[in-house]
Amino acid sequence: MRGVMMAAAVARLAVATRAFSTTAGGGVSMVQGASRGIGLEFVRQLLQRSEQGRVVATCRAPDSATELLKLKEEHAPGRLTVLPLDVTDESTIEVCNYKGKLMSNAPCLVLPSQAAATTIGESHGSLDLLINASGILSIPNMLQPETTLGKVQKSSLLLATCGHYWVGGRSETGRGFSLVANMSARVSSIGDNGLGGWHSYRASKTALNQLTKTISVEFGRKDNIACILLHPGTVDTDLSRPFQRNVPKGKLFTREFSVQKLLSVIDNTKKSDNGKFFAWDGQEIPW
Amino acid sequence: MRGVMMAAAVARLAVATRAFSTTAGGGVSMVQGASRGIGLEFVRQLLQRSEQGRVVATCRAPDSATELLKLKEEHAPGRLTVLPLDVTDESTIEVCNYKGKLMSNAPCLVLPSQAAATTIGESHGSLDLLINASGILSIPNMLQPETTLGKVQKSSLLLATCGHYWVGGRSETGRGFSLVANMSARVSSIGDNGLGGWHSYRASKTALNQLTKTISVEFGRKDNIACILLHPGTVDTDLSRPFQRNVPKGKLFTREFSVQKLLSVIDNTKKSDNGKFFAWDGQEIPW
Repeated sequence: MRGVMMAAAVARLAVATRAFSTTAGGGVSMVQGASRGIGLEFVRQLLQRSEQGRVVATCRAPDSATELLKLKEEHAPGRLTVLPLDVTDESTIEVCNYKGKLMSNAPCLVLPSQAAATTIGESHGSLDLLINASGILSIPNMLQPETTLGKVQKSSLLLATCGHYWVGGRSETGRGFSLVANMSARVSSIGDNGLGGWHSYRASKTALNQLTKTISVEFGRKDNIACILLHPGTVDTDLSRPFQRNVPKGKLFTREFSVQKLLSVIDNTKKSDNGKFFAWDGQEIPW
Repeated sequence: MRGVMMAAAVARLAVATRAFSTTAGGGVSMVQGASRGIGLEFVRQLLQRSEQGRVVATCRAPDSATELLKLKEEHAPGRLTVLPLDVTDESTIEVCNYKGKLMSNAPCLVLPSQAAATTIGESHGSLDLLINASGILSIPNMLQPETTLGKVQKSSLLLATCGHYWVGGRSETGRGFSLVANMSARVSSIGDNGLGGWHSYRASKTALNQLTKTISVEFGRKDNIACILLHPGTVDTDLSRPFQRNVPKGKLFTREFSVQKLLSVIDNTKKSDNGKFFAWDGQEIPW
């Protein structure tokens, strides 16, 4: 019995030291905010990486998420699950802790609904990778990045701050731990803030950084989960289109390039990187 | 004429290089959240500093702010003005820019009301010092610091984040610039977050840090205003009482001591400190 346990331990160690990239396609990934932009590209590339990986994609309106539905058809049944989740509509979400139960004293996750959460748990077990890509930057007539504080609205601060909670569990990939990757942005860095403006977008992402760091402390204590923050660069998406005018030539990335780089950062993340903030090129960003 | 202008310029320079502490009692200071705790102590010490200084104190319910009303009686007429301001009640506040007008594209201030704002402007001109002391940490049955993310409420994040906007104008003290001091806390530091917990309190103060830094960039460009963030230490107030159990011996400050130290930091603040975060002992705190 002891021999069996030791063999298992050694096997687990061997698995844990294997590079994540070789098994990145395996396991279960969840991408929040997956109908377009960076989120959609994450889904595309995660599905392309291996024949085994499964992806749970969430978006506000799955029925009209044509790109996601196309991806679903292109891949084997069961590889892509699309679920409704609108972080701005509390009726579409349920807050669960990362072990699948509703608890008041544990890190929690905004999931599509209690029923859907149960479905995810039953179909996939725990998540190996959660990417929170639902970065709300502008919603016409509702939420706009401000250029000065006078334009800051309470509601926009709230809206952009919330909806970035996460899940994690025991990893079933070669990584040896589950990873939560929260999409932040370099403008959230206080130390790096030399331009001003965009008050609530900055402040909400800075708050996300602090929340992620706070959660990372909890994860670091007792759980086999790490969480990191990512800066994707300035990416050519619907989200950034109104603001691309001032982007220097060569600094506007395609979604493909940015997500390729971010997945490479994810592949190279070690448990000891828990709580860190990385740019697309792997450089750490100051708080 | 040229001679007069030069003389004036030299005089202004002489004034500007005078230590603030010698004239700190002069000019107009405004303390938001002044009915108790650190805010009340700021009012007390600012009034004690000189016979000339005037203080505008705001709190939720001036009629029941017995300590403030006592101070008002103890000092000469006109030295202390008490105005109602409840940052959690939007009907009691008006958002003005720091030149006293409502503008959509300028740094703004939560003032008691439009009428009161006009009164402040007419009675006192612009402010020389604004201290935002209304740090909302816990409101029974409404807002409690969380120990884990599961307890984070959207409303508490919002409540604690907002209500920290400010004013500034041309200084009429020896300082040569107006100063906005926002009460933050060391737990807002992401880099210094080794303990976790208190998610929304941390995140809201971190967001305040980012907002203050963002505003400081605007101030730095065109205005004779600086803003800083302050950490008062752990102070024996109603606010901290429920959480004092774990404070190491000798680390729980009296209000008198903390405010004395903070006023010393304020006295020593230079225009080039715009956007910085200082502890009670003058040490800079990392973001």
